[in-house]
Amino acid sequence: MKTLDLVLPDTRYPIHIGQKLLGNIELITPHLKHPRVAIVTNTTVAALYLEPLLTALEQAGIDCLPVILPDGEDFKTWATLNQIFDALLGAHCERSTTLIALGGGVIGDMTGFAAACYQRGVPFIQIPTTLLAQVDSSVGGKTAINHPHGKNMIGAFYQPKAVIADMDLLDTLPERELSAGLAEVIKYGLLGDADFICWLENNMAALRKRNKQALAYAVEHACKMKGAIVAQDEKEQGVRALLNLGHTFGHAIEAGLGFGTWLHGEAVGAGMMLAAEASHQLGWLDKAQVERVEALLKQANLPTQSPALGIARWLELMSHDKKVENGEIRFVLLKDLGHAIVAKLPAAILEQTLNSRFVLHTQ
Amino acid sequence: MKTLDLVLPDTRYPIHIGQKLLGNIELITPHLKHPRVAIVTNTTVAALYLEPLLTALEQAGIDCLPVILPDGEDFKTWATLNQIFDALLGAHCERSTTLIALGGGVIGDMTGFAAACYQRGVPFIQIPTTLLAQVDSSVGGKTAINHPHGKNMIGAFYQPKAVIADMDLLDTLPERELSAGLAEVIKYGLLGDADFICWLENNMAALRKRNKQALAYAVEHACKMKGAIVAQDEKEQGVRALLNLGHTFGHAIEAGLGFGTWLHGEAVGAGMMLAAEASHQLGWLDKAQVERVEALLKQANLPTQSPALGIARWLELMSHDKKVENGEIRFVLLKDLGHAIVAKLPAAILEQTLNSRFVLHTQ
Repeated sequence: MKTLDLVLPDTRYPIHIGQKLLGNIELITPHLKHPRVAIVTNTTVAALYLEPLLTALEQAGIDCLPVILPDGEDFKTWATLNQIFDALLGAHCERSTTLIALGGGVIGDMTGFAAACYQRGVPFIQIPTTLLAQVDSSVGGKTAINHPHGKNMIGAFYQPKAVIADMDLLDTLPERELSAGLAEVIKYGLLGDADFICWLENNMAALRKRNKQALAYAVEHACKMKGAIVAQDEKEQGVRALLNLGHTFGHAIEAGLGFGTWLHGEAVGAGMMLAAEASHQLGWLDKAQVERVEALLKQANLPTQSPALGIARWLELMSHDKKVENGEIRFVLLKDLGHAIVAKLPAAILEQTLNSRFVLHTQ
Repeated sequence: MKTLDLVLPDTRYPIHIGQKLLGNIELITPHLKHPRVAIVTNTTVAALYLEPLLTALEQAGIDCLPVILPDGEDFKTWATLNQIFDALLGAHCERSTTLIALGGGVIGDMTGFAAACYQRGVPFIQIPTTLLAQVDSSVGGKTAINHPHGKNMIGAFYQPKAVIADMDLLDTLPERELSAGLAEVIKYGLLGDADFICWLENNMAALRKRNKQALAYAVEHACKMKGAIVAQDEKEQGVRALLNLGHTFGHAIEAGLGFGTWLHGEAVGAGMMLAAEASHQLGWLDKAQVERVEALLKQANLPTQSPALGIARWLELMSHDKKVENGEIRFVLLKDLGHAIVAKLPAAILEQTLNSRFVLHTQ
């Protein structure tokens, strides 16, 4: 097991990465104010991993309340969040009760937001069960639910007490979810580390075969990069926005098709392709670099073509982006492979991008 | 105008107290990141004060989005909160848009919570229009909505950029609302300032006649006391709990009768009476002191008898209190007049209190 230490102005917490961590409750107990937890998970993950976690905690004398939610991005709503509150209040959970998020990004984001709001804040711990959650969403304290008008529109910055990333939990991850997670891994290379792009090109096959060492290295590297950025800019006033590479386009895809149609990581993959294309149109990336991004996404079995939404709908959807300033959408673009910046896109270039071969077009 | 400066670990903000402040937009403009605001208010307050505020802001070139909610504690719900989000998203409000809460405690708490959550946090300003909001709820950053199981169960600690308490807005306040505000004023005397109790006994008539100097003094004194407590303990890990004097009983009254039946301040008044009675049962207050509390509440035209809920229902309702620890309810009680502490109550004394003459009993 490796442990990273994320140090922020008001708090710090460990990110444990390794194998056989789920049953190791010594990673959990030091963070409990009181021997009571609510484990928030979904039907899919509960069937696989709830029992071992429950057993380990209960054997240590910790009172556990399981809260099992429906599975999927389309349930990342107030109604589902309220199921958590109903369960906590129904069981008289107090301010000293710790919430444990056992699941992927949706469970992590909702549990974190529930923890931020329940009685104005209770502690929580992340046990991410998808690659996407392990490399990205479980770290850094962004929590949220979706609104019909936009992804993650209602939420809070609220940090967990610990993150426990167990590679063994990835054994059962569906192929499509694995690829979605790889999109966020690739993101770290593209936005800030050209050497890591090479490493990914060389190790993508091992990652897709779920080689545990390769996975742990990718998770560790991504978490280190994310931790360094979040430590500089916890509330996204500046550099943290770079972590949104591919997300302005990606969120529009998710909302435009209806949440849950594409996985978040798939939308981010296609979104990064568009960001690369726009960067090419701006003269920042050459054609070969765009093709290298395309090849890497294909290696990860990710879509490189966005769905046909129509220019007007793209613009409407992206107008709700959290990076919009004075009515102008700001994009994370690539000055070079491994070097992202935030910039506005001239309308003509945005249109060219949305008319490029990286967007499917209906007749 | 007097200005208090509330200094917290991560932020500081002014509390302006005086007359003719509503049209003085120089108190607002320095806090705007961008010349755009959403003014959240309710139907009652909008009819009285929205126009002058809108006019002043628009004359200064500030783009204003009014968001008018229904009036009353029974609307302090997720559904109403979502009306704010719908309006903000519908008008493409960005992270740089400032929310202005123009209203009483319900509007202030909901607008603050909306500001805490919208795109993970936007700035907000409090313009409290009730005495209760001016002396208590607009200061200190507690924001929340109610849950059917309990008052303010879902919320955040989230500080405003400024509080503007204009005594002129109290001219139109209904008598019952004025008395409700006086309950929170009395609270400050009882919990920490015996001299202020004397001042209130001597000046209650002037306050009820809405003498502006008396009102401004009461608001200033309460805000100073609250500021000093919040500066020590922003997230209610300790001393801040004292501000909950009367609230454990009071919240049970509000939830037990259905939110909006009694005003919050009325419930707090009756709740403080019970806290005084319990403190008497514990031998901390003598009979004359209890009668002095009763007389002061009566001077303010507040109820001194709680409604009949039945012991079992009282206990169930109070079991959801945010101060519950290890299943035990903790109360704010009076060691003396002007000296509150947090303590548990022996079951027999709690029962005696709920069977005292300060609770109405059905046949």
